[in-house]
Amino acid sequence: MLKPGNNAVIGQSGGPTAAINASLAGAISKLVSENSDNKVFGMSNGIEGLLKEKLYDLKHFFPEGSDGLSLPKTTPGAALGSCRFKLPAPSDDSNGIYRSLLNILKKYRIGYFFYIGGNDSMDTISKISAFAEENSVDLKCIGIPKTIDNDLILTDHTPGFGCAAKYVATVFSELRRDTSVYTQKAVTVVEVMGRDAGWLTAASALSRSAYSDGVDLIYLPEVPFSYDKLFDDIQKVWGRHSDVLIAVSEGIRLENGVYVGADGSTSDIFGHVKLSGAAKVLEEKIRSRFGCKVRSVELNTPQRCASHISSAADISESFDIGAYAVECALNGKTGFMSGIVRDCDSPYKTHFELFDIHSVANKVKGVPADYIDMVNSFVTDKALSYLKPLISGEIYPDYSDGIPKHFIFPKI
Amino acid sequence: MLKPGNNAVIGQSGGPTAAINASLAGAISKLVSENSDNKVFGMSNGIEGLLKEKLYDLKHFFPEGSDGLSLPKTTPGAALGSCRFKLPAPSDDSNGIYRSLLNILKKYRIGYFFYIGGNDSMDTISKISAFAEENSVDLKCIGIPKTIDNDLILTDHTPGFGCAAKYVATVFSELRRDTSVYTQKAVTVVEVMGRDAGWLTAASALSRSAYSDGVDLIYLPEVPFSYDKLFDDIQKVWGRHSDVLIAVSEGIRLENGVYVGADGSTSDIFGHVKLSGAAKVLEEKIRSRFGCKVRSVELNTPQRCASHISSAADISESFDIGAYAVECALNGKTGFMSGIVRDCDSPYKTHFELFDIHSVANKVKGVPADYIDMVNSFVTDKALSYLKPLISGEIYPDYSDGIPKHFIFPKI
Repeated sequence: MLKPGNNAVIGQSGGPTAAINASLAGAISKLVSENSDNKVFGMSNGIEGLLKEKLYDLKHFFPEGSDGLSLPKTTPGAALGSCRFKLPAPSDDSNGIYRSLLNILKKYRIGYFFYIGGNDSMDTISKISAFAEENSVDLKCIGIPKTIDNDLILTDHTPGFGCAAKYVATVFSELRRDTSVYTQKAVTVVEVMGRDAGWLTAASALSRSAYSDGVDLIYLPEVPFSYDKLFDDIQKVWGRHSDVLIAVSEGIRLENGVYVGADGSTSDIFGHVKLSGAAKVLEEKIRSRFGCKVRSVELNTPQRCASHISSAADISESFDIGAYAVECALNGKTGFMSGIVRDCDSPYKTHFELFDIHSVANKVKGVPADYIDMVNSFVTDKALSYLKPLISGEIYPDYSDGIPKHFIFPKI
Repeated sequence: MLKPGNNAVIGQSGGPTAAINASLAGAISKLVSENSDNKVFGMSNGIEGLLKEKLYDLKHFFPEGSDGLSLPKTTPGAALGSCRFKLPAPSDDSNGIYRSLLNILKKYRIGYFFYIGGNDSMDTISKISAFAEENSVDLKCIGIPKTIDNDLILTDHTPGFGCAAKYVATVFSELRRDTSVYTQKAVTVVEVMGRDAGWLTAASALSRSAYSDGVDLIYLPEVPFSYDKLFDDIQKVWGRHSDVLIAVSEGIRLENGVYVGADGSTSDIFGHVKLSGAAKVLEEKIRSRFGCKVRSVELNTPQRCASHISSAADISESFDIGAYAVECALNGKTGFMSGIVRDCDSPYKTHFELFDIHSVANKVKGVPADYIDMVNSFVTDKALSYLKPLISGEIYPDYSDGIPKHFIFPKI
């Protein structure tokens, strides 16, 4: 039960995912079911909108609670809108942001503050909860994680990763069928999102199954990239079949730390070095080396909003972790991120826990060494056991006139 | 009923699609149900494999007929393998291909010849049927159309287009949710396949619905492209909302006929002009002009093999047109392509007819002028009425361990 006279506010921040609205739905469901007279506000475009007092009355949109929330669960993006806004340190209020924030919290009688996002969003929550504590403001602050990058520490994995991973694995399984139709030697290089952590690229390994080769070679930002190794790897695969399918993280770097996608091999008419994208650069290098047919594919933004083929496991956890965060706040907890703890890979079992928000913010969790098969440029069985349950089960949106139905708030 | 002693052979050719195996399944279903002792051969890698006598015994793989064919129906690619092989004119057998072909047809006692493919494949069928007729060979030849480009003449549309169109429309609907999360002015340019015909790019218009803006602007190869018009269009959209979502065909050309993707603005370190891709070139031009956030996305090969979200209408028609082609051949028809005639847009109703194969081969059907809204850089209601039924209904593959199950022939 929400404390009387204490309203709640929730916002979304950072890059969109296919599951962030499921977490929003889970939190709303719990907040609305706390059958009190308190209000539940939604920040339009995160903290930016809160500072401009652009707020949705969420009980107005979802008076019936969870029954009305199935559409947001399968809507990608960030229904409330997002922002990229870095708060100053709580001790430095020279530009008056915290004073404004305090006034708005008082004006709207807000006692509960929820923020769904990645690294930067946890930084925001961390600062606001520290500020509230320092100024004796009674505000329960909980962060709800989301990122397709899966790079938050402490939590076993992040909501939103499973959906993106399922899409990536599915596309690789289909691309394998596509590339295998011809008989001549060919290479397809597919670039997957992930600047500093290779989790999503590693998920391409799930396309390999008993009946299909799936992806052949995987290059992650966690391992320094070498062209000699790449060329050797390709020739080894040609010993097995003619079409080589490669997954690379956008953030792969050479031994000297320079991004492959910015290795200077491409320039515009003015001679400026361009960040071509890792796959594009590899395409040219492989063509030069072998003279064979090479194609590069950049999965790009569709991989973070492909709600038309969501992981049921991810959507379910994303919804539940939203509800869990609310439950914890109602129980008086503050200054935490809700996270996932894995009890077992198979049968897959997890539970939720709270993690100190200050420990989580601004840190990056890469793919660990024992998940990476350096010799075969692939991932290990341990990685596969970790990844597999995260993409299990399918959840599809409703369709209207052949395209998915989505939930959309009116602009304010 | 197949004529006794007359075996059948079927092949796939050209670029893969999500529906070409549904047509194969439809043809096999009909051939196997013709409960005779005749054999049904599948060419491994089209005409190339036939010339090397690389043939599958399809009754061995599908003894039970249609019951065993549900997996191929949702498998993308070209299960038998494909090729790009241009036959010489039937009158010119200087390299002996037709003599070889004749020997193979005799050796395997082939009386029925089916070929599933696009323009080039219809050219192959056209030549083989002409050769058979000129040499009094009793061979019934029928072409079964497929191409995501939808650019074959006479047929109302091509099998495979609906699946690709549904994926494109779905991705645009999701990208709209993704692009709309921030408030600053931004442009996203998405490149869709289609070198000479803009059908697939036009299908992005289906992402616009009562509840979502979907795509804002559409540029097709049928209309000479102008940067001034593009910049004007973008500013008009900014009058309505901050994020502009644009669809461009890979084949858009300037007034002077030069591909936008090869307009010379990008060169490699050796100064060679590179075909950067139309969206990439537009990204740079728009950024230079407006200084705003711009992103380019190339949908690339995933759009032609996205069986995880197929159009039920397309898969159903693709299966049926395969069966229809067989039925026609059994009735003694030869030298035709099976095609689709539309009786009504709504309720959608079609029937199949045969079209003279020699009239179909090597011709391209573009998007007609009355389907294009030049003023608003969009498509007309007439185009929408045409496109809408082609993406209707959803058909999903079975999944195993979180990824789609596919049908795969062993390599021969």
